[in-house]
Amino acid sequence: MTRSELVENIQEKSSFLCVGLDTDIQKIPKFLLEFEDPVFEFNKRIIDATKEHCVAYKPNIAFYECRGAEGWSSLEKTIDYIPTTHFTIADAKRGDIGNTSKMYAKTFFENMNFDSVTVAPYMGIDSVTPFLEFKEKWVILLGLTSNKGAIDYQFEKNERGEFLFETVIRRAKDWGTDENLMYVAGATRGEDLIKVREHAGTHFLLVPGVGAQGGSLEQVVKYAGIPNEIALLVNSSRGIIYASQDEHFESAAAEAAKKVADEMSALAF
Amino acid sequence: MTRSELVENIQEKSSFLCVGLDTDIQKIPKFLLEFEDPVFEFNKRIIDATKEHCVAYKPNIAFYECRGAEGWSSLEKTIDYIPTTHFTIADAKRGDIGNTSKMYAKTFFENMNFDSVTVAPYMGIDSVTPFLEFKEKWVILLGLTSNKGAIDYQFEKNERGEFLFETVIRRAKDWGTDENLMYVAGATRGEDLIKVREHAGTHFLLVPGVGAQGGSLEQVVKYAGIPNEIALLVNSSRGIIYASQDEHFESAAAEAAKKVADEMSALAF
Repeated sequence: MTRSELVENIQEKSSFLCVGLDTDIQKIPKFLLEFEDPVFEFNKRIIDATKEHCVAYKPNIAFYECRGAEGWSSLEKTIDYIPTTHFTIADAKRGDIGNTSKMYAKTFFENMNFDSVTVAPYMGIDSVTPFLEFKEKWVILLGLTSNKGAIDYQFEKNERGEFLFETVIRRAKDWGTDENLMYVAGATRGEDLIKVREHAGTHFLLVPGVGAQGGSLEQVVKYAGIPNEIALLVNSSRGIIYASQDEHFESAAAEAAKKVADEMSALAF
Repeated sequence: MTRSELVENIQEKSSFLCVGLDTDIQKIPKFLLEFEDPVFEFNKRIIDATKEHCVAYKPNIAFYECRGAEGWSSLEKTIDYIPTTHFTIADAKRGDIGNTSKMYAKTFFENMNFDSVTVAPYMGIDSVTPFLEFKEKWVILLGLTSNKGAIDYQFEKNERGEFLFETVIRRAKDWGTDENLMYVAGATRGEDLIKVREHAGTHFLLVPGVGAQGGSLEQVVKYAGIPNEIALLVNSSRGIIYASQDEHFESAAAEAAKKVADEMSALAF
């Protein structure tokens, strides 16, 4: 998907919501276990229930990989089911030497036709650029993450007084353009979001940690949104897909997604 | 596998060679394509040919993942085939928020019974410790990598004049012990290996980049080995598994592995 298509979808829907498909077979409604592929069945229903309110879907690959070949098959069916109007993110946090990153890129871009994949920055340029060679495909590079451990290295200050996450974002900017490179920006503190946006320029930001993890959507829009194009995708996983765990999970998920989308509409459009 | 078992295996064989099973279906001898699972067939024969000379095997997960459910099945068969006398490394470079890292840990430690998995450090403590909670299982944390892009962030100097890879190694040391935490240490320059060993104490180091990538084994032993226990695993992938690509690939692989093992024996035992 191109940037202009993504921006158009966001503007049409007044929503920049991404639904995280972190589908745990232990947590889905019990009656789905009777289906041949309960995880896919759950995802299918969640997609049907939420697609009107969101512009993107993000399966976290760990949830599928941990079920081996079977999980892999649920993932393939899920990505095929997501409407092409929606931006798709393989939340895989991959990254390896050039040759090997290329294989990961093929996995997610060619075999599975994801629009984007999240990439860890530690190994530098040749672990990232192989993903950027695919037309209309995106890298979403970890900049600032929303977990507790972010403090361990991402806030390491360099000789110039800059945090590592700032250096990561600034330096990687030249590896791609704002048409194929986004950053992960954890919605933790307003001042950090300001720094992220400063370094990221007009690049899109994928913001986790809003919803179940408690981040404030208002802060995100205020500190990290940009005029007109917004340039944000805000993810919510558990708060939507597990809004209810009984037989009414579809309507509960729809309602939860609509609630976030309405908040987005009021804040940014 | 425990540390003392690993050390014992190394001493018995006078070898600390790890064979990288980066098996690319495009590169294996053509006659193997007639088998039901050519990648597994190749791995099986490589394992039979080299097991006498090495103490560890390291499949890079990207090479399997890129073949979807089928590749996943080749990987499962391969890990089951490796003798329990050999230390096994899932070269996956994973790392995510705690909950999700735990799923990756289950994938490689429970579903597939690997002894260890390589982990990327960028997300900090809660992305690493879930892997350390499994008994007799290991994290191999990226410290210094051997690729070109290592320079981009790993050599970022902090306020105290320390490179990022030093901080990563030093700080992560408290998260585990030398019985469940190793580091990746790219065999690039002697002076960097000295620094890695200084911070890593008695922890094992996994050294890539010797062999096809041209690192010097002598330097590695001199600068990063420790007395008696060695505390090194040196990996070679392409130099061994693709030593020949015709029908004699097994004997060529055996010979290539023996050559490295003999060099190790002369240098360190």
